[in-house]
Amino acid sequence: MGKNLATKILEAHLVEGELVPGKEIGIRIDHTLLQDATGTMAMLEFIAMGVPKVQVEVAAQYVDHNLLQTDNRNADDHTFLASAAQKFGVILSKPGNGVSHQVHLERFGIPGKTMLGADSHTPTAAGMGMLAIGAGGLDVALAMAGHPFHLTCPKIWGIKLTGSLQPWVSGKDVILEMLRRHTVKGGVGRIIEYYGPGVETLSATDRATIGNMGAELGATTSIFPSDRRTKEFLEAQGRGDAWQELAPDPDATYDEHDEIDLSQVEPLIACPSAPDNVVRVADIEGVKVDQVIVGSSVNSSFRDLMTVCRILDGRRIAPHLYFHINPGSRQVLENVTNAGGFMSLLLAGAQVHQPGCLGCIGMGQAPGTNQVSLRTFPRNFPGRSGTKEDKVYLCSPETAAAAGLFGVITDPRKLGELLPWPAVQNPDRYVVDDSGIIFPPEDGSKVEIVTGPNIVPFPEFDELPDDLEVEVILKVGDNISTDDIMPAGNKVLPFRSNIPAISRFVFERIDPEFPDRAQQKGSGAVVGGENYGQGSSREHAALAPRFLGIRAKIAKGFARIHRSNLINFGILPLTFKDPADYDRLNQGDRLRLEGVRGLIAGGATEIPVKVGDRVFLTELKASERERQELVSGGLLNVVKKGERRGK
Amino acid sequence: MGKNLATKILEAHLVEGELVPGKEIGIRIDHTLLQDATGTMAMLEFIAMGVPKVQVEVAAQYVDHNLLQTDNRNADDHTFLASAAQKFGVILSKPGNGVSHQVHLERFGIPGKTMLGADSHTPTAAGMGMLAIGAGGLDVALAMAGHPFHLTCPKIWGIKLTGSLQPWVSGKDVILEMLRRHTVKGGVGRIIEYYGPGVETLSATDRATIGNMGAELGATTSIFPSDRRTKEFLEAQGRGDAWQELAPDPDATYDEHDEIDLSQVEPLIACPSAPDNVVRVADIEGVKVDQVIVGSSVNSSFRDLMTVCRILDGRRIAPHLYFHINPGSRQVLENVTNAGGFMSLLLAGAQVHQPGCLGCIGMGQAPGTNQVSLRTFPRNFPGRSGTKEDKVYLCSPETAAAAGLFGVITDPRKLGELLPWPAVQNPDRYVVDDSGIIFPPEDGSKVEIVTGPNIVPFPEFDELPDDLEVEVILKVGDNISTDDIMPAGNKVLPFRSNIPAISRFVFERIDPEFPDRAQQKGSGAVVGGENYGQGSSREHAALAPRFLGIRAKIAKGFARIHRSNLINFGILPLTFKDPADYDRLNQGDRLRLEGVRGLIAGGATEIPVKVGDRVFLTELKASERERQELVSGGLLNVVKKGERRGK
Repeated sequence: MGKNLATKILEAHLVEGELVPGKEIGIRIDHTLLQDATGTMAMLEFIAMGVPKVQVEVAAQYVDHNLLQTDNRNADDHTFLASAAQKFGVILSKPGNGVSHQVHLERFGIPGKTMLGADSHTPTAAGMGMLAIGAGGLDVALAMAGHPFHLTCPKIWGIKLTGSLQPWVSGKDVILEMLRRHTVKGGVGRIIEYYGPGVETLSATDRATIGNMGAELGATTSIFPSDRRTKEFLEAQGRGDAWQELAPDPDATYDEHDEIDLSQVEPLIACPSAPDNVVRVADIEGVKVDQVIVGSSVNSSFRDLMTVCRILDGRRIAPHLYFHINPGSRQVLENVTNAGGFMSLLLAGAQVHQPGCLGCIGMGQAPGTNQVSLRTFPRNFPGRSGTKEDKVYLCSPETAAAAGLFGVITDPRKLGELLPWPAVQNPDRYVVDDSGIIFPPEDGSKVEIVTGPNIVPFPEFDELPDDLEVEVILKVGDNISTDDIMPAGNKVLPFRSNIPAISRFVFERIDPEFPDRAQQKGSGAVVGGENYGQGSSREHAALAPRFLGIRAKIAKGFARIHRSNLINFGILPLTFKDPADYDRLNQGDRLRLEGVRGLIAGGATEIPVKVGDRVFLTELKASERERQELVSGGLLNVVKKGERRGK
Repeated sequence: MGKNLATKILEAHLVEGELVPGKEIGIRIDHTLLQDATGTMAMLEFIAMGVPKVQVEVAAQYVDHNLLQTDNRNADDHTFLASAAQKFGVILSKPGNGVSHQVHLERFGIPGKTMLGADSHTPTAAGMGMLAIGAGGLDVALAMAGHPFHLTCPKIWGIKLTGSLQPWVSGKDVILEMLRRHTVKGGVGRIIEYYGPGVETLSATDRATIGNMGAELGATTSIFPSDRRTKEFLEAQGRGDAWQELAPDPDATYDEHDEIDLSQVEPLIACPSAPDNVVRVADIEGVKVDQVIVGSSVNSSFRDLMTVCRILDGRRIAPHLYFHINPGSRQVLENVTNAGGFMSLLLAGAQVHQPGCLGCIGMGQAPGTNQVSLRTFPRNFPGRSGTKEDKVYLCSPETAAAAGLFGVITDPRKLGELLPWPAVQNPDRYVVDDSGIIFPPEDGSKVEIVTGPNIVPFPEFDELPDDLEVEVILKVGDNISTDDIMPAGNKVLPFRSNIPAISRFVFERIDPEFPDRAQQKGSGAVVGGENYGQGSSREHAALAPRFLGIRAKIAKGFARIHRSNLINFGILPLTFKDPADYDRLNQGDRLRLEGVRGLIAGGATEIPVKVGDRVFLTELKASERERQELVSGGLLNVVKKGERRGK
């Protein structure tokens, strides 16, 4: 029985456990990725571990999120990260050099390597045939220190691609088709492996788009083969020697299966305010559009931007509309400029920003009240744009450009009336420029770390008590995202290295009284529905509630990265054994978990919870390692006690 | 006796009074300029006047300040301004199209015209031979409604230029030389007229630089002749027919006089934290630089940016340093791109932003704590960068580029070791692109104005009572800027159309308790030193304190625009007859101005102020018109009562 590609890479990196879906495994990590929003905390955690130098093949620190610099804090964080990178042997990509995912693809990605990134869109590297997983900052810090990464062994979900995309349809429509079919929970506990004859019709950057938004399906990661298209991209980057061929065995099997005929994929669009709220563009034509943004972490490659340039070339965006471009990298912008595309954008009236995440993380570009914004971003969770009650749609660059010209949502195939399908290809040889990349010295031990006034030491957390008594501080519904729990945006992101300060914003959009109430009660719980904690990998969504006294979260289900983050910071991630118990709980209920420390340490999978005289059961599926972390009050306590998990 | 050019233009526009320095005159306004930070309030004021359409030759509304859009408010303001512009016949320059001053120079400036702008750097149009004056928003709104602009007739100060600039020295060094000689008060009550054989050695954009920073000298405005260099610039813009020759008579005389031999001007730099804290660059070489910013309202022209491009071409900025570029306009960026300069900037590692003010107004680009920032901006008042205790230096593009390459403050003449002086000239023919400019319809009466939730109606102010009793809420020193009184930056600027909200930030950096204390006392005064209210033209620095109950400001001297704004909103601008009385006043003192209404209405120039049993004298030099405004509680009350000043 042939092996699929994901299994081959997992096997090659397996250091603990066995590859049985649902069992915990430990894998060796080759590359680590930090960005600045998660990276300051991860770097503080790495420093706390006392390791003199990173222990992975490639450790990269990107500065792409906090680019607005409305006061000293962003710049202080950048200076801190630059100094720490030099000291510990980390490659630094400076502000303005681009989005981590795009730059890593261009300059550092190697087929067949594993990567752990403190960013949920780390799986963008699927476009390079990497097994790249998003995780909390502490997990990444541990990997930087040479520890394996532990995860629940996922199922491998084969998606067979056949046919080829029609004109005016691109990679974004493929992943929107996946979201249309499978929803934001469809990928949970799975690695999505794309294979079949349709794969070679997709460029490395189209594959990266599909890999990126596998995160929106809740998948552990996604993977593509490394084939001639991968080689072509690496050679165009002057890195042909990094290529190796990687493919599933011809008779490979998969735990689950689906198939997409690319020739049948139509232009799709995710409506407000969830990535899986997908319809055909043709079905909502005519909606007036106020703002369009192309780029950020997805659809910011040369092909994507040049396609927009060709569509806008010699034309003007609708006068009432604001059209923004966020290039994925300085390299992309340089190649687009070289091909004449930058002038096309300017002459059409577009606002071209420096490369970076920007509006995608709510750092600027917020739409006006009640305005419709079409974005090629991966996410449209409510309020993530910075505007309350926003109306954000997600679409391909082709659909974005069509809206830019016509001023209303328009099926991009209508552009065929204006121009032939531009069929942009990535260049045979990119202009390559590493002026924004700072490599560390061989020996950084003498480098002094520069810590600005906003960087506050990591808080101390106590161990799990024998009995836990908590009050339900808040009850929320399904699909609560980490944006809901710990908002981003320009008001909040500058506090990412200051837990006391950032904790004041926990659940701000849902219940601004939450931080006060939680701190006043001293020991609290949050009750949630399905897919609790979807979206961004930010560990602050666990760390800040823990700082406020939250000791347990009881939900119908947890998103993978958030569940790990809860355990990392000693919050119990309990699921209802009977989902009907969700309906019986209310804010203000007092819960008793008697003997919970002993139960968890002893391996119990059922944890009884008393509310008044009634008892209901919750489940805790956790590995031995995870139980130790929960009992110790978090992973950093384990590490501090010298009881780090195996190397 | 021959006439100077300023007098000729004033005479051609004089509608009230006579041209005697110190007397009030009224002049006809041909062009008006609004930007978005002052423009939302000015537009609300214009609406309050009930005039159906603007009554000037050219009325332009620029969106260049609030470009960060961290929530709905900036975008809501943009939408409001766009709708109001369409309705009232105002030309709109959209976000990303550029800084008002640069765009007006390029597309709308006409030699010999008068312009009133709600921005203190409106005198940039001096580069075009315009008599362009900065004023409060209400003054500009009145001008838009067809009213003359009233001002104290200034002295005309002739500056004879001889010789020509040495390599690596440019217009910025000339105005820094003026600031070195004459300080931030040197231009008060004066129009600075540059003439002589050195003038024709300066391009229109170098002259614009010098005109722009005449504001830092406190001048009413500056003016250059309209000659073959002006013609050359207009022809390169495809607007040669707008040109006319304008020059002083050969035997022109001036009220005051100075002379600069351009060949003797050295590279200069303004040290933290005042524009007149000027030294030779050579004298402070070696100071480590963390950040460099080129562009914004001054030094953002083609010549300025291309000079930086040529210096950086094929080189890399120092690795530890962040190098930002804020192009003055989309046109500048297009022409720089066309000439290959954009690629030079990217390849050197620079961060190129969309055209706009950005860091100059504290909208992003804040340096880190204790970091040194070299900027080609016009101002470096403390904290204006967004970072407390900032260390901002002002310099030429040449000096900025030298610091970028060497990483430390360096005399740009040292660049001669790396490359020949690039001697960049403005193009013979610019790429011209008006894609960011929206012209209004002939009849806008049917256009509906779109008002976002942040746009709060103008507050009502009561008339001056017969007797005024006020408490000294705050006592400050010399050279207090409008940045000190009403900070800008990303936290505050979004509230520019919401007086109750923005008033919470008055004097925030000096005394955060000020708003509470002022509101609690109900009726207050502020005591200041020399040059009170220098800097930006923002009327919010008068309007918001008035909202908090401030009825009088007593200082050793007032900056021109701020004094007008105080009168516009009914705050008494009193000066100490004996400056020694300043030392005798303290915060908390209760002051009685008995019979003040009658005194002011009656034309009294001395206003007695009682503090305890003591009486000291203050002076009020005000015209009849100004006295009426003060008595009425502000200009808008006069306008509402139908007692508008003459047309």
